[in-house]
Amino acid sequence: MRLATLADGSRDGKLIVVASRRDEYVAASNIAPTLQMALDNWDKCEPALQLLAQQLNSGQLVGDKIDVRMLASPLPRAYEWVDGSAFLHHVRLVRKARGAELPATLLEDPLVYQGGSGHFLAPTSDINIINSEYGYDFEAEVCVVLADTPLGTSAAHAHAQVRLFMLVNDVSLRGLIPAELAKGFGFFISKPASAFSPYAVTADELGDSWREGRVHLPLLTKLNGKQFGNPNAGVEMHFSFADLIAHISKTRAFTAGTIVGSGTVSNSSAGVGSSCLMEKRMLETIATGKASTPFLQRGDRVEIEMCDADGRSVFGKISQACV
Amino acid sequence: MRLATLADGSRDGKLIVVASRRDEYVAASNIAPTLQMALDNWDKCEPALQLLAQQLNSGQLVGDKIDVRMLASPLPRAYEWVDGSAFLHHVRLVRKARGAELPATLLEDPLVYQGGSGHFLAPTSDINIINSEYGYDFEAEVCVVLADTPLGTSAAHAHAQVRLFMLVNDVSLRGLIPAELAKGFGFFISKPASAFSPYAVTADELGDSWREGRVHLPLLTKLNGKQFGNPNAGVEMHFSFADLIAHISKTRAFTAGTIVGSGTVSNSSAGVGSSCLMEKRMLETIATGKASTPFLQRGDRVEIEMCDADGRSVFGKISQACV
Repeated sequence: MRLATLADGSRDGKLIVVASRRDEYVAASNIAPTLQMALDNWDKCEPALQLLAQQLNSGQLVGDKIDVRMLASPLPRAYEWVDGSAFLHHVRLVRKARGAELPATLLEDPLVYQGGSGHFLAPTSDINIINSEYGYDFEAEVCVVLADTPLGTSAAHAHAQVRLFMLVNDVSLRGLIPAELAKGFGFFISKPASAFSPYAVTADELGDSWREGRVHLPLLTKLNGKQFGNPNAGVEMHFSFADLIAHISKTRAFTAGTIVGSGTVSNSSAGVGSSCLMEKRMLETIATGKASTPFLQRGDRVEIEMCDADGRSVFGKISQACV
Repeated sequence: MRLATLADGSRDGKLIVVASRRDEYVAASNIAPTLQMALDNWDKCEPALQLLAQQLNSGQLVGDKIDVRMLASPLPRAYEWVDGSAFLHHVRLVRKARGAELPATLLEDPLVYQGGSGHFLAPTSDINIINSEYGYDFEAEVCVVLADTPLGTSAAHAHAQVRLFMLVNDVSLRGLIPAELAKGFGFFISKPASAFSPYAVTADELGDSWREGRVHLPLLTKLNGKQFGNPNAGVEMHFSFADLIAHISKTRAFTAGTIVGSGTVSNSSAGVGSSCLMEKRMLETIATGKASTPFLQRGDRVEIEMCDADGRSVFGKISQACV
């Protein structure tokens, strides 16, 4: 099923169920007022939400027409946003670009950072370029939403912790990252608010594409209407979501609704493009000695979506204008 | 007024008001079921909570006897936990201890890290030492709880963003920090769950001690019943809470209930002791060439509190046993 959050002026919005193959929705507030509350009581809410989705999908129930501009982030605020960096091709290119060393444990020990989670952008919110010298970049990723996850969850048990899937545009300020990371405490002001996909979906919407802890579908990013990248989100994901969950739960537990990201999706094969500007700039530097693609400018538009084998946009489209 | 959260088996507990100078409380659930909900609707809830506190303080209302073991963290989970490191004496000692360089911008640019916020420990919860080689350490700090804080909040306006004050024991795994920070993305598994003080208090409970964006009272830490440190939380706080709030809001906004920490309270004057084991170990190394104080062991107890000029424990006592 596909879940979304109607922006109704409240802090956490209003939970709705969206038809799997039609642009229709029904309110789910009688099951749970918000997505966080559904996640907090998933065992009770999930069967009722699935039944509602079936009624909508079968046409037994007629919904209202959905327009993604009505939507907030599925979780307008979340208790944790933990972003991995599991595509090593991306790690290698981006570290090279900023002259930073690769961690010695790159292949065995997942890279993750703790992101800000109190204020997410809607899937169609503008990216507010407050200073063009900050080097605004998009980063297209896949992420999962967790159930309550105990301390010491093993990779073998981590699979069962995944409740929902989303896409994310994890905006990065490339101009601020080197100086901030040099301070030693990780990202903070170099990561403004992220935007998530219109729909958060359960595994049944992905079918066989969700296997081995990875989503084996191409992630399409467009810049100003033109394809910028279409790498597969499964094949070169070095650490699976199960690996990432096992890593983060080594020393603490997580509450339901915690979001875990894959890191920028990236494939080494030529021709598939990139999921962020920084990678393209680094590839240009390697090829010609100089980056020619600029960072985001006011007036640019970034679109991110993932289509299945039938060409259906599983998560709906993130579409953000830079202002 | 003093607010607290009764652990009632629910995820976010039940909001109570605690008398300022007696061990009595009354439920505040008819005003707001949880502290997060009170913070979400502060303008409406705060006058009603203050009135309830006045009735309790004056004896007009008789409360029930409070036992801090009944309490969860004031916010059992929060949307963000942003910890500064504003006591430069601490930064200098701890970086020296792990052979790390001081940031070139130490005096001008605040150090902060994004902490995990989905699962906080109660003020009397055990510290579960899952591996004694991880080097468990306590860190005693003061923190503030924010109102909705817009992007670009200046230090001059930041003062008005502070809704509540708490203490925190920000547990650190010293054995895991060097390798994790070497990966470049900041703390993650080296920071297990933090514990907050029993009470979250409004500024009126601090009186003149809250001035210039700092809490000018000594922060008492005891280890196994003996005083370990008693440094003043105001005098050597290089960046004020207003500075920290202005720093973190440079590129994004924060939701009500975001917690901002001071960093480990530390004074350079001899004799006041420390607020973490690592500092003491470094001072021993400087004095004798060798650290003799061990990290936390199973069986140890850490207590943290802050008393005002009248000797009243403003926030109640964090008291955690290591198991």
